Amino acid sequence: MTKPTAVSLSVVRRLPRYYRFLGELLKGGCNRISSKELSEKMGLTASQIRQDLNCFGGFGQQGYGYNVQALYDEIAKILGLDKQQKTILIGAGNLGRAIVTHLDFSHLGFDLVGIFDNSDELVGETVGSLTVSHVDSLSEFCHENSPVIAILCIPKNAAEALADSLIELGFKGFWNFSHYDLAIDYHGIVVENVHLGDSLMTLCYRVKNNPSNNS
Amino acid sequence: MTKPTAVSLSVVRRLPRYYRFLGELLKGGCNRISSKELSEKMGLTASQIRQDLNCFGGFGQQGYGYNVQALYDEIAKILGLDKQQKTILIGAGNLGRAIVTHLDFSHLGFDLVGIFDNSDELVGETVGSLTVSHVDSLSEFCHENSPVIAILCIPKNAAEALADSLIELGFKGFWNFSHYDLAIDYHGIVVENVHLGDSLMTLCYRVKNNPSNNS
Repeated sequence: MTKPTAVSLSVVRRLPRYYRFLGELLKGGCNRISSKELSEKMGLTASQIRQDLNCFGGFGQQGYGYNVQALYDEIAKILGLDKQQKTILIGAGNLGRAIVTHLDFSHLGFDLVGIFDNSDELVGETVGSLTVSHVDSLSEFCHENSPVIAILCIPKNAAEALADSLIELGFKGFWNFSHYDLAIDYHGIVVENVHLGDSLMTLCYRVKNNPSNNS
Repeated sequence: MTKPTAVSLSVVRRLPRYYRFLGELLKGGCNRISSKELSEKMGLTASQIRQDLNCFGGFGQQGYGYNVQALYDEIAKILGLDKQQKTILIGAGNLGRAIVTHLDFSHLGFDLVGIFDNSDELVGETVGSLTVSHVDSLSEFCHENSPVIAILCIPKNAAEALADSLIELGFKGFWNFSHYDLAIDYHGIVVENVHLGDSLMTLCYRVKNNPSNNS
C-alpha cells in the first residue's frame, strides 16, 4: 500500500469514527456491510464513505460491500493503533485522573507509562495502575524511558511554562486539555487540542439558533 | 442586528476560540487589537478573522482595529452566554465528576441544576455544589425544573436506553460523552459529541504521519 501523505485532516478525523462503528458491528456479529448500510448507521452519505476510504486505497468490492473485520483491522493499521506509543500524563487533578480511568489507552495506540504532577498532595497517589510522580523527576524519567506523547491536563500558564522543556525532551505529540496551544509557538509539533469549554459554548449557540426550536 | 441563521458550523465552532483569546487579551489589559495582531496570536489569517466576524455583522473599524471589550461582549451575546440554560448531568462517574469540577458552567452559558446516576453508591454524594440524585427521579425533577440541556457521561447502551424519555422530557440540546449519537436517530435535536477516544486516535495517526518526524 502506498503511504498516505496528503490525506486531509477532515478525512483523518473521520477514521476513528469508522473504526468505532466497525467495532460495534463486529461485536454485533456483522461480517459484511454495504457502504449504503454503513452510511445510514453513521449519518454520512455512501459516496462520502467511499471517497474517504479511497484516500487509503479503497477496500470495498463492487456488489459485495465491505468485509467488516478486514476494514476494521486496516483502519487500525492506518491509524497506527497496532503499535503503542509511550505516553505520559502531566496533571493528575480531577480531569487527568478521570481521563486515565475513563479511556482504554492500550486499545487506542498508547502505552501510558507515567503520570506527573507538581502537587505534593497528589504525588505518590495511585491513578489507574500508575503512581503519580513529581514533575521535577520528568526529565530523568524521559531520558530513561523516552516517551513520545504527552497528555497535558494542566492550566494554561503551567503548560506555557513547561512547553520549552517538553519540546527539548523530544515529545512528538501532545493531547492538550490546557488552553495554551503549543502548535502556534512550536511549528512541526502535532497537537490535538481538546477544548471542552469551546464545545459547550458551541452547544449553547446551536441550541439558541436551532430552527427546530421556536424560542 | 439581524438574526444569524445561515452561519456555517465551522464559523460557529471558531467563535468560542475568539471569545477565549479576547478574554485573555482583556485580562492582559489590552483594549484594542488589529485583525493582523489577533490573527498572529490565534494562528489564523487576518482575512479569515474578518470573514468570520462579518457573518455576524462585522465589528472592526478600518485603521482602528477591534475594541476588545466590545467584541468580547458581542461574541458572548452571539453565543448566548448572557442567558443561562438549565442543565443537568447524567452519569456521576469519574468523567462526570471531573467535568463538573473542571468547568465553570455559569461562565459558559449553563446553569447546572441537577446531577443523576443509577448507582446507589453515587446517589447522595456531593459533586461541586450539588447532590447526586437517582436517575429514577429524573422525570419528576424535569417536570418541576424544566432543564433544557443534558450532559451525558454514561455508556453507549445506557444513553440509547434513556434517549426516548430524554427527548420526551423536552431536552433541546445534549453534550454527549457517550458513544451513542442521538442526532442520527432524533432529527432536529442539537447534539455536541465529545469523543475523547477519537481525538486520541487522530493524534496517533498525525504523529505517525507527521512529515517533521523522520520515523
